[in-house]
Amino acid sequence: MADSSGEFVRSPNHFADRITSDGSSRWPVEPGRYRLVVSLACPWAHRAVIVRGLLGLEQAISLAVVDPIQDERSWRFTLDEDGRDPVLGIGFLSEAYLKADPGYTGGVSVPAVVDVPSGKLVSNDYPQITLDLSTQWREYHRPGAPDLYPEPLRAEIDAVVEPIFRYVNNGVYRCGFATSQQRYEQAYEGLFAELDRLSERLAGQRYLVGDSITEADIRLFTTLVRFDAVYHGHFKCNRHKLSEMPVLWAYARDLYQTEGFGETVDFDHIKRHYYQVHRSINPTGIVPLGPDPRAWLTPHDREVLS
Amino acid sequence: MADSSGEFVRSPNHFADRITSDGSSRWPVEPGRYRLVVSLACPWAHRAVIVRGLLGLEQAISLAVVDPIQDERSWRFTLDEDGRDPVLGIGFLSEAYLKADPGYTGGVSVPAVVDVPSGKLVSNDYPQITLDLSTQWREYHRPGAPDLYPEPLRAEIDAVVEPIFRYVNNGVYRCGFATSQQRYEQAYEGLFAELDRLSERLAGQRYLVGDSITEADIRLFTTLVRFDAVYHGHFKCNRHKLSEMPVLWAYARDLYQTEGFGETVDFDHIKRHYYQVHRSINPTGIVPLGPDPRAWLTPHDREVLS
Repeated sequence: MADSSGEFVRSPNHFADRITSDGSSRWPVEPGRYRLVVSLACPWAHRAVIVRGLLGLEQAISLAVVDPIQDERSWRFTLDEDGRDPVLGIGFLSEAYLKADPGYTGGVSVPAVVDVPSGKLVSNDYPQITLDLSTQWREYHRPGAPDLYPEPLRAEIDAVVEPIFRYVNNGVYRCGFATSQQRYEQAYEGLFAELDRLSERLAGQRYLVGDSITEADIRLFTTLVRFDAVYHGHFKCNRHKLSEMPVLWAYARDLYQTEGFGETVDFDHIKRHYYQVHRSINPTGIVPLGPDPRAWLTPHDREVLS
Repeated sequence: MADSSGEFVRSPNHFADRITSDGSSRWPVEPGRYRLVVSLACPWAHRAVIVRGLLGLEQAISLAVVDPIQDERSWRFTLDEDGRDPVLGIGFLSEAYLKADPGYTGGVSVPAVVDVPSGKLVSNDYPQITLDLSTQWREYHRPGAPDLYPEPLRAEIDAVVEPIFRYVNNGVYRCGFATSQQRYEQAYEGLFAELDRLSERLAGQRYLVGDSITEADIRLFTTLVRFDAVYHGHFKCNRHKLSEMPVLWAYARDLYQTEGFGETVDFDHIKRHYYQVHRSINPTGIVPLGPDPRAWLTPHDREVLS
């Protein structure tokens, strides 16, 4: 929602409980107990899908995928038989929110972690959800799973993802949902300045922090993969397409072609969600046909940087 | 306006009188008598601006430029002192339409040729206006003016511009103003299929017809020059940017860098018009900052095809 200056302001995440391995919260790590609810359209939820897959947590934490099109009751399980999630038995994600807080009147967002026995939402706190998958669920990671948030690199990862969140992940929304020309232009300048900084950083190194994929790369990837399909046109982030920014485009294709990334990208869900749901900026709901996603499979030549 | 199937249908031009050199119409060729009213935003009017300049008709036919932003009374002379055209003395182009036909209730479009003495609209028939500048005003062309519609090439020019009009000039509007997904997709497929055919044609020859610039090139140019700034995002013509179609992009830059073309392109008027006027597809009226128009000045290397 835009404030009186025309600036898009992201709502805070209300449910910030954590699932922990040391008994420090009321939600213990327990395989089979929790259900991760995502939209494949949503970049914030997409992070959790990638992290869960890279860590091999598919058996420990089950996955529910909502319809990419919300109605006035928000995210729906209309892709499932009878319109209900087969594990939670609910038709709308809001039901899990209301079980956790019967007086809740705020927004309903993904990713959402739901406690299956009680049906209650545990968390919609997306930045913490992926970190906890990495740090709290370690006992259930697959053999050889990557460390996406390694202790010695945490300060650097945290420092790198802060401007990525501000100017890129959330920056594209600040471009697209600005209701004043000035706020739009500020968001646009901030976005492309940060993309230029990231291009410089990534010109000589394969990944954002250290020698292997970390949480930082995942957070940047889920925005970059939506850039040309949605943000460039729909959100007016049109200084360049991603495909016109050589370093970032090669970097993003490298990740896309890495096991655990490309197969989680659903351009159909992504495009239908943004273009059909945001009627305030796309009243017709028409979904553009371009661009051709096969470009994601072209060689990236980034192996030499490893 | 879209019909019941969601197809954009362009209104016919109501005023199709011609100015002729042989006395065959009631409007004789006469220097200083007529005023060409254009919007620099409008691709149909832009054709006439280019043709008038290439032929050196600036002294013979004066030029009025309207505000790129129409209000509910359509095109306005709000860029002029006191909001009135200094020659015609009117504030709104509609006044010339009504002088020509007091009962007229249709749309008001540019380009418009107005008879200065009577203040009456002569023609808004854009395809004929440029041809008549080439063929009827020959006596007043500058020495060495190009023949943009040479007798021996007319059949070929007519044949080439027909699909350019249908699929490209008007095709981008059929993409942008479609109100059904199906009609949008038909327009998009037709547009890019024709752009592919034009790319093939222009791969081995510098201009569309013959060895020099003709009316056909001007008609294609005024759409191509708006492609990345407007049609790609605003009208969802997003299979590729023009800058991603190498032959057409070089061809368009070649023309842009030819005297009489680039200096007639006003990206500010173009962008403000489309993005601020079409609230049905851009409700916020925010004008995207990108892309960088300096790309139009990069080398095109098409001279070798001459």
